[in-house]
Amino acid sequence: MIFHGYFRSSSAYRCRIAFNLKGVAPDFTSVHLRRDGGQQKAPAYKALNPQGLVPALEVEGTVLTQSLAIIEWLDETYPTPALLPQNKVERAKVRAFAQAIACDIHPLQNLRILDYLKTELRLDQAGLDKWCVRWIGDGLAACEALLQQEPKQGAFCFGDTPSLADICLIPQMFSAERFGVETTALTRLRAVYDACSKLTAFSDAHPSKQPDSE
Amino acid sequence: MIFHGYFRSSSAYRCRIAFNLKGVAPDFTSVHLRRDGGQQKAPAYKALNPQGLVPALEVEGTVLTQSLAIIEWLDETYPTPALLPQNKVERAKVRAFAQAIACDIHPLQNLRILDYLKTELRLDQAGLDKWCVRWIGDGLAACEALLQQEPKQGAFCFGDTPSLADICLIPQMFSAERFGVETTALTRLRAVYDACSKLTAFSDAHPSKQPDSE
Repeated sequence: MIFHGYFRSSSAYRCRIAFNLKGVAPDFTSVHLRRDGGQQKAPAYKALNPQGLVPALEVEGTVLTQSLAIIEWLDETYPTPALLPQNKVERAKVRAFAQAIACDIHPLQNLRILDYLKTELRLDQAGLDKWCVRWIGDGLAACEALLQQEPKQGAFCFGDTPSLADICLIPQMFSAERFGVETTALTRLRAVYDACSKLTAFSDAHPSKQPDSE
Repeated sequence: MIFHGYFRSSSAYRCRIAFNLKGVAPDFTSVHLRRDGGQQKAPAYKALNPQGLVPALEVEGTVLTQSLAIIEWLDETYPTPALLPQNKVERAKVRAFAQAIACDIHPLQNLRILDYLKTELRLDQAGLDKWCVRWIGDGLAACEALLQQEPKQGAFCFGDTPSLADICLIPQMFSAERFGVETTALTRLRAVYDACSKLTAFSDAHPSKQPDSE
């Protein structure tokens, strides 16, 4: 099993947490993401993943892409500990929370988008910061409201064990910090962040601890 | 079961196809999406879905959000016909294809983003068009490459029956057309689009056939 990722990528960070929670240790290849001449655009990598995005997982003679699909595959292949609840409605809520981050926050602050805003639309740093603060801020506020709605409150997003929701939340909180987004009002999210940070599965997956960290 | 959607929303369109394939007919409430004063921002709707996005599904005494989570819930609740393959790796590929659209194409052309580009960044129509063509064009080209890679070729994205992949593709092809994106080189995607268009589950879900169509 070969995992292609990058220390700073939120999507790769999600997969690292999931691998750690499952106790699975794939071989690692770093794909150096850069605006110009990044390895994600090299023909060898695009042959693995035509999207030119990380992560990609070489496994069972094929290549899996997209972090959420990889994590669900991992959860189905190594069922313990479960990353999704048994109950169908609860499972849908965990998936929806994960997608609220993976679809509606993260893609908007991705390298390729920030690059376009900078080079094509000539946004200065203040404009870029405003863009990130807007989408990450609005998005995390909605995530906070989604959790506040839940009748069951636990140490993690949904209950007393980490799930796909926490796996998506923690990298997004890291990005929020990186882009200077204020999160003090997000009390539930911050409590979950603190709970997750105490687990080695999460702390070992932190970008600063990766072999390709700059 | 009450489905909150909007005729033009790609995410709602996905759910409509899935409901039709399953033969499930929820009650429908239209959420009129608008830049200013849209119903998606009204407190009554945000109490249902704090993200202020469609779709939302009221079911089993709660509210489910996010089209892919709703469709997986539907698939688990009404298993026939299956919208995901039985094989784990194949299932991961279908999910990844769906996410390549739902995470990496669709959110970039969403109403709130186009509104920001127009009002905050003062992009003119040509600039907006270029933005849409770039992300939809690049994204669909990657989707075409993902399908071309597959050893098994069928009438649909993955095999001989429609799956979550087709459910995401068809609304995205509709948006591509709407935003003037050239798709003639995408031969596999166009063949799938033609195959799906012949099924009433898909054609009945088309935006032009909805009660709230303008």
